[in-house]
Amino acid sequence: MPRRRTTLKDVAKAVGVHVSTVSRALNPDTRHFIRAEVVERILAAAERLSYRPNAAAYSLRTNRTRIIGVVIPDIANPVFPPIIRGIEDELSERGYLAILVNSEPRNPRHAAAVDALQAHGVEGLIVASVERDDPVMLQLVEDGVPVVTVNRRADDSVVPSVIHDEDAGMRLLLEHLKQLGHHKVVSIAPPQFISTGKARYEGFERYRRALGFDPDPRLALFAGALNEAEGERCAAAALDGIRGFTALVASNDRLAIGAISLLRKRGIACPGDISVTGFNDMPMVDRFDPPLTTVRVQQYEVGRRAASMLLRRLDGERLPPPEHHVVMPVELIVRASTASLTGRRKPRAAAVS
Amino acid sequence: MPRRRTTLKDVAKAVGVHVSTVSRALNPDTRHFIRAEVVERILAAAERLSYRPNAAAYSLRTNRTRIIGVVIPDIANPVFPPIIRGIEDELSERGYLAILVNSEPRNPRHAAAVDALQAHGVEGLIVASVERDDPVMLQLVEDGVPVVTVNRRADDSVVPSVIHDEDAGMRLLLEHLKQLGHHKVVSIAPPQFISTGKARYEGFERYRRALGFDPDPRLALFAGALNEAEGERCAAAALDGIRGFTALVASNDRLAIGAISLLRKRGIACPGDISVTGFNDMPMVDRFDPPLTTVRVQQYEVGRRAASMLLRRLDGERLPPPEHHVVMPVELIVRASTASLTGRRKPRAAAVS
Repeated sequence: MPRRRTTLKDVAKAVGVHVSTVSRALNPDTRHFIRAEVVERILAAAERLSYRPNAAAYSLRTNRTRIIGVVIPDIANPVFPPIIRGIEDELSERGYLAILVNSEPRNPRHAAAVDALQAHGVEGLIVASVERDDPVMLQLVEDGVPVVTVNRRADDSVVPSVIHDEDAGMRLLLEHLKQLGHHKVVSIAPPQFISTGKARYEGFERYRRALGFDPDPRLALFAGALNEAEGERCAAAALDGIRGFTALVASNDRLAIGAISLLRKRGIACPGDISVTGFNDMPMVDRFDPPLTTVRVQQYEVGRRAASMLLRRLDGERLPPPEHHVVMPVELIVRASTASLTGRRKPRAAAVS
Repeated sequence: MPRRRTTLKDVAKAVGVHVSTVSRALNPDTRHFIRAEVVERILAAAERLSYRPNAAAYSLRTNRTRIIGVVIPDIANPVFPPIIRGIEDELSERGYLAILVNSEPRNPRHAAAVDALQAHGVEGLIVASVERDDPVMLQLVEDGVPVVTVNRRADDSVVPSVIHDEDAGMRLLLEHLKQLGHHKVVSIAPPQFISTGKARYEGFERYRRALGFDPDPRLALFAGALNEAEGERCAAAALDGIRGFTALVASNDRLAIGAISLLRKRGIACPGDISVTGFNDMPMVDRFDPPLTTVRVQQYEVGRRAASMLLRRLDGERLPPPEHHVVMPVELIVRASTASLTGRRKPRAAAVS
């Protein structure tokens, strides 16, 4: 805290030596230049006066702060805390500290927030809020800033990333619904300006065709944001505009939770009338009513890997191409929001399509 | 980012002027000393070379960074994101940026994390991770660092705080259970080294006596941490050791969620056999099975107030004593995890004690 910080000068004055003597005595690398008895007195005075080495000054001299900036798009989205924990654990084992900023490109102050992290001497950035086309991010890379993106990636392959196997996740979900006897399923895709949104939507299109689901393009809906309200809006649009569907493939848990709420408000049973699936397996979705069938992504591990990748870059390692973009495997988690069509009452609107 | 940062020197070299001329030209306060044509060329070169004013150097000169450090104990606890949003919105309106660190006093690196924020020139700190006896916090205050605690407070009244009316919350919960006909209720209190834990436990003791509940001290259990696992452990201890109780007053939503899970594992219905209450009304507890009866604290507002209080201190205002510790009102939210004893099957173990 600048205002009343004890300076080297204060310590020097208290001990009655020159400020450069204090500076050398406090630095383990130069301490041997100073007589041991003087070092003792200086350390005691520094302790007594609560002297703290000024990292701002230190960073100007050495360019090493051992601080990494982490940019997350929405701290209220429960998928991010486990990612942050993974980042922090990996950094902490290597003596680094994470400082977080909650911001995304659509935020008018986004560039300023990222600049502030840079200006305060973070050694590198881990960015969870990247969009597919992200000028702020590309500028960082052009400026030579070490950056790794996590959970999402930019279309431009120049920024290293650690992401999930979205394609496999969508295949597992559709295979599951197929086995349960569903044929006409509606997709609620995340926004297409983020990589997860695009990959999940493309996976839906690919596998609904490959697995013989109804390929009607009107069955693909798009959310404007990753929250429960958008899930409700899209589910309402599906109920009002599409007849005879039996499942909602919401490609994000928060969208799925919103969709289930909307079904309940309309008196429609999940999974009795309509099955609903999510994506992410964020904390707590096993405790919802009904517990959510979803795809588990490795939230904690993806954070650890991203941090490890950034630290290797800071150590001057050049990552070989296969390690430049890491894709982590995913897993289908079947709970109670999906049900078999066999032996169930017929779809609430007679199948017309 | 230090490594390849463009310096004043680079800009000076590109334009062919002295570095002090660049420094003056880039500073709106001293720009008028330099010829307009030279200023133009310097600004163009600074732009072209992606020069960013070095905030570390700036902070050494001016002591103003417009950055506030926020320390939260556990980013995975859903009660904190809305508090952080409140802090960020208030700071952002005043041109300040929040940087977050996830740490609490029990973390061996806590002092280092707080030091790092300080050393990087945050102008003040908002601390959600404060414990009742918190030497790191008191040291900050002794060092003259502007600090406000949020959601929790230290026993020592020297640190300004914005907290919730825990006492009223506990009264509302017990009045609700009384009205439903409960008499023998078990409390699961948060750890007593945090202010919320102490206040909620004391509230439980006060109002169970005032309202005529069973005052047996064995009905008060204590969680070691604020998570679902501790809620499960305490609920198991209650079921295994206490006979004839009809409600669990878990003084934190995560403890309540854990308690409900444990009841389900044992085949005990909530609220049919045992009612369960929480505290906080964190996001999503309305969607759980069953939706949780709890006390709503003003998560977003408490964040805004704490930020506003800190900014007033940074402006040099001395807060009058009534505004030094703010207590925000709370509200009872009745959902489906509590039920009336009237007309229900009798307690699963016949009331003995």
